[in-house]
Amino acid sequence: MSETNKDKLHLSRRRFLSSGIMAAATAGLTAQGAPALVEAVNQNAKAPSKDAIEPFYGEHQGGILTPVQHNTQFAAFDLVTDDREDIIKLLQAWTTAAARMSVGQTAKPLGNDGSAPAPDSADALGLSPGRLTITFGFGPGLFIKDGKDRYGLAAKRPAALIDLPRFTGDQLVDARTGGDLSVQACSDDPQVAFHAVRQLARLAYDVAQIRWVQTGFTPNSKPKETPRNLMGFKDGTNNPSVNDPKLINQFIWVGDEGPDWMCGGSYMVARRIRIALEHWDRMTLAFQEQTVGRHKYSGAPLGKKNEFDKADYDATDADGNPIIPENSHISLGAAIHNDGAQILRRPYSYNDGANVTAERWPPWRDEMEFDAGLFFICYQRDPRTGFVKIFERMSKFDMMNQFVTHMGGGLFACQGGMKDGEFIGQRLFDKA
Amino acid sequence: MSETNKDKLHLSRRRFLSSGIMAAATAGLTAQGAPALVEAVNQNAKAPSKDAIEPFYGEHQGGILTPVQHNTQFAAFDLVTDDREDIIKLLQAWTTAAARMSVGQTAKPLGNDGSAPAPDSADALGLSPGRLTITFGFGPGLFIKDGKDRYGLAAKRPAALIDLPRFTGDQLVDARTGGDLSVQACSDDPQVAFHAVRQLARLAYDVAQIRWVQTGFTPNSKPKETPRNLMGFKDGTNNPSVNDPKLINQFIWVGDEGPDWMCGGSYMVARRIRIALEHWDRMTLAFQEQTVGRHKYSGAPLGKKNEFDKADYDATDADGNPIIPENSHISLGAAIHNDGAQILRRPYSYNDGANVTAERWPPWRDEMEFDAGLFFICYQRDPRTGFVKIFERMSKFDMMNQFVTHMGGGLFACQGGMKDGEFIGQRLFDKA
Repeated sequence: MSETNKDKLHLSRRRFLSSGIMAAATAGLTAQGAPALVEAVNQNAKAPSKDAIEPFYGEHQGGILTPVQHNTQFAAFDLVTDDREDIIKLLQAWTTAAARMSVGQTAKPLGNDGSAPAPDSADALGLSPGRLTITFGFGPGLFIKDGKDRYGLAAKRPAALIDLPRFTGDQLVDARTGGDLSVQACSDDPQVAFHAVRQLARLAYDVAQIRWVQTGFTPNSKPKETPRNLMGFKDGTNNPSVNDPKLINQFIWVGDEGPDWMCGGSYMVARRIRIALEHWDRMTLAFQEQTVGRHKYSGAPLGKKNEFDKADYDATDADGNPIIPENSHISLGAAIHNDGAQILRRPYSYNDGANVTAERWPPWRDEMEFDAGLFFICYQRDPRTGFVKIFERMSKFDMMNQFVTHMGGGLFACQGGMKDGEFIGQRLFDKA
Repeated sequence: MSETNKDKLHLSRRRFLSSGIMAAATAGLTAQGAPALVEAVNQNAKAPSKDAIEPFYGEHQGGILTPVQHNTQFAAFDLVTDDREDIIKLLQAWTTAAARMSVGQTAKPLGNDGSAPAPDSADALGLSPGRLTITFGFGPGLFIKDGKDRYGLAAKRPAALIDLPRFTGDQLVDARTGGDLSVQACSDDPQVAFHAVRQLARLAYDVAQIRWVQTGFTPNSKPKETPRNLMGFKDGTNNPSVNDPKLINQFIWVGDEGPDWMCGGSYMVARRIRIALEHWDRMTLAFQEQTVGRHKYSGAPLGKKNEFDKADYDATDADGNPIIPENSHISLGAAIHNDGAQILRRPYSYNDGANVTAERWPPWRDEMEFDAGLFFICYQRDPRTGFVKIFERMSKFDMMNQFVTHMGGGLFACQGGMKDGEFIGQRLFDKA
């Protein structure tokens, strides 16, 4: 990162804005351009409220333990350069831009030399960052691709950054799967989240190309209420508490097992899970509840009254049948049925319109159906003992599988947080 | 509408909730089901704040003059029934459900007989309606399709409900265009908007099938601030003021010219306009401003200082060139250049991911690009003197055309508002 850029990050918002005015004054703007820029600066003069800003620098990356924002824009990129230095420059530029945007600034200062492309698409100008977090990840292809060690990083690939196995029922589409780099922007404003990824994609022209993207949303649930997914059930009840550092250190953050550059980081598994909503909507309430293992309206485990009541997997009804079916979603996912394995789920719903779909179940309708479902994201210390461990069995037996199809996703190593002045990947690329 | 349903609409929220408890008690729910339902009822016991409720009944349909909500879910339906009575029953059910949902209730009461599909997908349970409006429209196909008068309504087709002409540059995809019925749900919560359309689609099974859908969003701009679209420009500055009844009566609401059933209604034109964001983002700020005819950051017309300053289309620079180019977007759209024509724009941005796209301009890149842009919606008293009049010339000359592609849309007759107890289409179907 250039000294100039680093200095800019240290500027207070007010000073940044003054420097923006100076940039406009010195950049030879036309008579029409100058007042417009000044206008914008005036508009932005009020700093966003502290509540709207999530720290970009810190021990861990934002967007993992951060309370889920209302919107997400995810993008996976393929590297198209042969030059390791290009990647370093890109990651430096991404870090600078991400730090700026997380406090509500444009990706680059608004000064314009008149002949260069506009420095920012400006669609987030004047908007609150809405708790914007930008979480970066490294996919297996950064380390080795088609057997080639393109950037001299193969030896640094963490053992935990596996090639995900093929699970039963997987219908992953290549064009929605994998990627060498990942960026996830989350914000309470959909335009802010999209703006962030778009600016980062611009900075990547000729170095990294978008491979796939996914948007997601959560409802405006009341604070601390578990949001409902599109199946109408509360989703995330069984997460380890982010307020329990012991649990989080045990299951989410990479520790001494390393590699060093991953300490304090976490592995993200993303899965685009289409839900056959029309099929689900034709089921009775009782069958839906048996499938999930919870009461729909309260979120309580079957046989219990309140959402956070402990599930009793041994309880049986008068006929001796388990109250919570063994093949229900929550039973198969429970830590006690997975040798204690836990992951931090951070799911978003997605809604990508509708398209003609052939249902996989009677009466095999072939019709326009919603292309909507769950953009499942989870974090864990090691995917082999996290998502893979848990999903291996679920993919075979979960009653829910008749309603869901995994269509894409990936595994990304999200390094620990950065100190101010450090760039994402600096430790990996040994540029300390 | 059945008396029972009509009565339910008249119940206060509290009484509705009590009746929900009774339904649960009498519907033979299992021991597991009953507490869950009671739980849900408790959760919903607090009525949404008045600010979160837009009136469903009234002189005009909601979602037209209503201040733009943050999210929209649009759906166009093809009628697949031969029976006019099916449509009437559908429109009755839609009206009942829409009125319920607009005050935060489920589409149908939550009582469940155990063997029927769950009465509501429940993903909006406990959420504020977020100013939900549901706006219904009738497409040309309701009146006549493939030359057939399927429902005896051909004589009632308004002259203004034309078949939209093909405009220069149109690349409308059949699967994203037209439809016999339209539903637009708008809410400040994306899950509420989607929930509403999904419930209405469920009610339509076997009578009407989804033809195409479109989601949209607006940023969290400050109140009364014109939101920016994805080109980074403020969009909607030149709208007729919704606070000027004379203007709105002149340009937006259908008057004595009728037909009777359309009095107090309006015609909606929808266009899905993809924006070549990557191409746009490579342009200089000055060129973008020439294209639009406005300063980007302030929103002021070129040569002016403030967003709402009057554009001076006669002003020239030192060389005698117009300050606002004649082929700029605002110049071509201005009322003064369209014999006074005005429309009420109610645009949303859309973000449908990314796909491989061949650019239409040098250097003819063929790459993954964002499938994002504008879900343009406008209302007018007569499309022939509104959208068609204005867009005819714009489609040929607008400098912006090199960055945008119209890919779908439709024209729908949105009748006037309903009295409590009336259903949408009642006047058209002569069921008073």
